[in-house]
Amino acid sequence: MKRDKHRVVIIGGGFGGLYAARHFNKAPVEVTLVDRKNYHLFQPLLYQVATGALSPGDIASPLRMILKRQENTRVIMAEAIGFDTERRQVLLSDGELPYDFLVVAAGSSHHYFGNDSWGEHAPGLKTIEDATEIRRRVLLAFEAAERETDQEKIKAWLTFVVVGGGPTGVELVGALGEIARETLRRDFRHINPADAKIILLEGSRRILSAYPEKLSLKARQSLARLGVIIRDKTIATEIYPDRLVFTSGGKEERLATRTVLWAAGVISSPLGARLAEAVGAQTDKTGRLAVNPDLSLPGHPNIHVIGDMAHVTGRDGKTLPGVAQVAMQQGKYVARTVLRKMRGKTVKPFHYRDFGSMATIGRSSAVADLRWLRLSGFLGWLAWLFVHIMYIVEFQSRLLVFVQWAWNYFTRGRSTRLITGPSPLPLFKGRIQAVAGSGDKSKSDRAERTGVSGITWR
Amino acid sequence: MKRDKHRVVIIGGGFGGLYAARHFNKAPVEVTLVDRKNYHLFQPLLYQVATGALSPGDIASPLRMILKRQENTRVIMAEAIGFDTERRQVLLSDGELPYDFLVVAAGSSHHYFGNDSWGEHAPGLKTIEDATEIRRRVLLAFEAAERETDQEKIKAWLTFVVVGGGPTGVELVGALGEIARETLRRDFRHINPADAKIILLEGSRRILSAYPEKLSLKARQSLARLGVIIRDKTIATEIYPDRLVFTSGGKEERLATRTVLWAAGVISSPLGARLAEAVGAQTDKTGRLAVNPDLSLPGHPNIHVIGDMAHVTGRDGKTLPGVAQVAMQQGKYVARTVLRKMRGKTVKPFHYRDFGSMATIGRSSAVADLRWLRLSGFLGWLAWLFVHIMYIVEFQSRLLVFVQWAWNYFTRGRSTRLITGPSPLPLFKGRIQAVAGSGDKSKSDRAERTGVSGITWR
Repeated sequence: MKRDKHRVVIIGGGFGGLYAARHFNKAPVEVTLVDRKNYHLFQPLLYQVATGALSPGDIASPLRMILKRQENTRVIMAEAIGFDTERRQVLLSDGELPYDFLVVAAGSSHHYFGNDSWGEHAPGLKTIEDATEIRRRVLLAFEAAERETDQEKIKAWLTFVVVGGGPTGVELVGALGEIARETLRRDFRHINPADAKIILLEGSRRILSAYPEKLSLKARQSLARLGVIIRDKTIATEIYPDRLVFTSGGKEERLATRTVLWAAGVISSPLGARLAEAVGAQTDKTGRLAVNPDLSLPGHPNIHVIGDMAHVTGRDGKTLPGVAQVAMQQGKYVARTVLRKMRGKTVKPFHYRDFGSMATIGRSSAVADLRWLRLSGFLGWLAWLFVHIMYIVEFQSRLLVFVQWAWNYFTRGRSTRLITGPSPLPLFKGRIQAVAGSGDKSKSDRAERTGVSGITWR
Repeated sequence: MKRDKHRVVIIGGGFGGLYAARHFNKAPVEVTLVDRKNYHLFQPLLYQVATGALSPGDIASPLRMILKRQENTRVIMAEAIGFDTERRQVLLSDGELPYDFLVVAAGSSHHYFGNDSWGEHAPGLKTIEDATEIRRRVLLAFEAAERETDQEKIKAWLTFVVVGGGPTGVELVGALGEIARETLRRDFRHINPADAKIILLEGSRRILSAYPEKLSLKARQSLARLGVIIRDKTIATEIYPDRLVFTSGGKEERLATRTVLWAAGVISSPLGARLAEAVGAQTDKTGRLAVNPDLSLPGHPNIHVIGDMAHVTGRDGKTLPGVAQVAMQQGKYVARTVLRKMRGKTVKPFHYRDFGSMATIGRSSAVADLRWLRLSGFLGWLAWLFVHIMYIVEFQSRLLVFVQWAWNYFTRGRSTRLITGPSPLPLFKGRIQAVAGSGDKSKSDRAERTGVSGITWR
């Protein structure tokens, strides 16, 4: 019996969308995966790109490559901008795409709680472009400090603030601590990178607040060993290119810093609002859509929303977090559910199985909460490494990432410390500064100033 | 006896500048290496980044990392904009830098023979940003072709032209041929990437005109096997976003293409002209400075110019080519010469030892002219691989590059096929186009259109 082929359109090639697509493999459907980018990004390792340990190519795989052998699936590089649910069309910025079943998995981006102007001074970490921008800013700060002579200004260049003490913030400050204390140790002549001040601001009572208290504490200790300063119950209130204002315990403080990184809030893709409008639904305060127990939209059994865009309540009554595990499980679930619906079968509600969470801190320390087992330190790090490598290997045998890690681990190196993008020079705009002893100094004077070790040329 | 320390300033961290710096190791001098970028770039492999086989981080190393253990040397990230030879100062965009000896090695960039507007439509390949831009354009062309329905337009998207048949042009078309015929073979559903037309335009009588005629012929055969079309004695006369005009044998032709890449002319850094002005010298037609036999400027024994910026005549009466080998030998020579001059010793003139040249063509073929031995095909490729790996390993044990190559070789994959940078969407500006069968087609109609193999959804 020849089965009629339904058209399934999936918006987004992140964890949710890609897992959904893969679980339609060999099914009698026509799948179209739409993404604005041509690659799937392994976001949990993005901070490693931002801190020069991995190249973008190590954590991103072309969607076409992943899905090339899945013959019922095509990939389209395009931007979805809206929905016509009556005509069953996804509106693209340059066309339309008809569907019978729709899976919306467009993810989230960072959110400055209404202070959108902060984006310029405090970049977040969601895309490859974000990561190379952060890498650029961090490395340039050390370069500028090396060139600067004013001690106060050197201090501001060497002050790095990360706002938000969730896993991303913790991993970022951990990596920054390592860069300052180990990677760059012998790279500079005028500054000591280990003088860098790395500060983590957390709004709530403790960092990693979604984790058990004990692991929070372990993370805190690991970060302290890397010299990271943690400020709990502290909220950024103003961000400028050269300083940060925050309130801590009701008191306002100011800090001179040239590098602020954002790891605090996320908000759903604006596509959520467009979809809500199209079906007459509402979004919650972070832009997520309420869904039925089978992740479909009320009144639209053929439209499913998954991942960071869906507001789903777990068995424990809490809203599911916006993490890869949730999106992956929902992607798999939704593919099976759509296939059951096509065959007219009943569907079971979605249930999230929490396998736990993890975060790394620096070179060989991590905290892992596996529900039945809590690990920290080196054991936690091994668990973290294993889980992440398994995932990456699953997709495309990215053994290289493993090799690079091993290499970095033994050499403590971060070889992809490249400042790319538009020319950042001059570092000291509008100001002429001598970078070495001025030309009229006598030679004997110079000879005195310069020793073989501990050279200072100023 | 305590020796007075002379200040040596080196402008440029390419092959010439970096080799000069390294040969001052442990010498009783204060070395300052100035570069606009924070890394040394292995330019001969840039085409591999442009074609998605390697990541930028694989072929670039932070200058600080390379020189961290060389205690008499500091690295400054700054832009040199001129010279005050009277006061012995290098003028930076944001300061001044005093020197006793100066080594100018700022290299070259591409040159559009007076048609600077071509730069926008036909990017060259000199920097990492160039390479990721070319990668972006090539990959986007395939994406756009996949979305397009007009056969003529598909053809234009799938026509790739490289202008210039030197080693860079030959290596680029070789890699493009491989991408179209192997890497992307199963990635698309509507187009066949192997239909791509890859054309190499060469102005002279034959490609690789600096090589022996026999190797030119071998390269030609290897390229033909990859489906590359070579047009000798052909000059581009007009370049637009959607077409190219060229004259071949006195006849004007037009070609619809969306991707033109530039590998034709190079010109010295504008710093050459500034230096010529400062010392009252002249530059040749590609901006190079004439130098004494010891590579110093006439009348300025303390200023040396090396690499692509120097016009040096070899023993055979020909001008030395702008290749890494020349710059590296000059860097080493100039460091020794400066040290001899400081000690008041006589110096010998620079002599270039030509160890030969090489170019790769696709996955496992190369031509190598080692003077005493000429290799082509797989043997040539092995020689090429060996020489390049030796170089890279010398600098920082970049074993990873070797691993990635081996991986690519066995899998025929190019995993860093990322389209990064500003959003290129919509691909089809100002035009609405259905990307799949329109929504009102009957289901049975759709069922007919779709088979398991050779799927076409249009």
